[in-house]
Amino acid sequence: MKRIAESTVRRLSLYLSFLEGIERQGVKTISSDELAQLGGTTSAQVRKDLSLFGSFGKRGLGYSVPELSEKLREILGLGKQWRVCIIGAGKIGAALARYHGFADRGFNVTAVYDSDPAKIGKRFENLVVRPISDLEKDGAKQDFDIAVVATPAEATPAVVREVVRSGIKAILNFAPVQISVPADVTVRTVNMAMELEGLSFALSNRGE
Amino acid sequence: MKRIAESTVRRLSLYLSFLEGIERQGVKTISSDELAQLGGTTSAQVRKDLSLFGSFGKRGLGYSVPELSEKLREILGLGKQWRVCIIGAGKIGAALARYHGFADRGFNVTAVYDSDPAKIGKRFENLVVRPISDLEKDGAKQDFDIAVVATPAEATPAVVREVVRSGIKAILNFAPVQISVPADVTVRTVNMAMELEGLSFALSNRGE
Repeated sequence: MKRIAESTVRRLSLYLSFLEGIERQGVKTISSDELAQLGGTTSAQVRKDLSLFGSFGKRGLGYSVPELSEKLREILGLGKQWRVCIIGAGKIGAALARYHGFADRGFNVTAVYDSDPAKIGKRFENLVVRPISDLEKDGAKQDFDIAVVATPAEATPAVVREVVRSGIKAILNFAPVQISVPADVTVRTVNMAMELEGLSFALSNRGE
Repeated sequence: MKRIAESTVRRLSLYLSFLEGIERQGVKTISSDELAQLGGTTSAQVRKDLSLFGSFGKRGLGYSVPELSEKLREILGLGKQWRVCIIGAGKIGAALARYHGFADRGFNVTAVYDSDPAKIGKRFENLVVRPISDLEKDGAKQDFDIAVVATPAEATPAVVREVVRSGIKAILNFAPVQISVPADVTVRTVNMAMELEGLSFALSNRGE
């Protein structure tokens, strides 16, 4: 498969999220125009995005909603089950371990790690917190797909080195730092504080 | 002030987050090298970023941690109090209304809106859910700074039109759609599902 840009993958997620919404409402077909509107793009872009993965839709009839959403789930790897470890047994880690939408999409949290001796060995949702130093050894057995990094900024670079050493190739980063990884590791970042600060910055500097 | 790139503002947030961490540990000064490491950038970039806002630091002595973090808070508009309304009285809206980190940073949730008659009038944390059709009228009195949009995909375009009409200039978007707004409105998006799908896509398409 050709290398697909991150912006394309984001649009595929948006299309899927929209299709799943209208599927629940019983809508059976959709045009590329309608998909484009929701994805904030053009119908030509929608057709181009989808053509990367084969041929969809019938001219003049639009796309079949169940068929296209099933295909998008497959493209996005959502038909599979992924093994997820959480690093950082704090508030964000706890919220994620509890979050059902996570497991519903095939993201199964099977272990949680921390470096704080006060936390190691404690129960954490239905898991027991393990020392981060065991990650590499455990990973050899459990074969984690994704590490969720929810550690304080200053602890994060060392944690990320452990994650990379253990062979994990995908990181969801909640830590407020820029993460450096080898090219074969994919990182996505979620940082609400940073987004909010972007807004307050924009509001503070309007019209100057 | 010159127009500042979004990537610069993101780095300022990262610097601040790091500075606040080491400030709690009692560290008094820091070099641009150390800041650069945490921001995933170079010390030249750090100096360039900070020079946009005046002159900081003493040659050979580095930056004063309390002074620089205070200045960054000011630049990012964190010294102020912002009036926030939440649109969408669902799970994400509830989590945000409850979230203390929000108010601690000066983001005060003062109203919540929904379009669902079953929700309107109900108590929601310490607020009462109001009809979205009142947003413009309420906004004239309350003067909201930021709208947090946490609505289902299909409801979002209409909600965003209401937000823009009411004169709000900053939107934090949790809805899984691309939002279109006039140029004078700033949008930041937080979408964990999309980030996760980006990872599962990358894992599914490795080495093909």
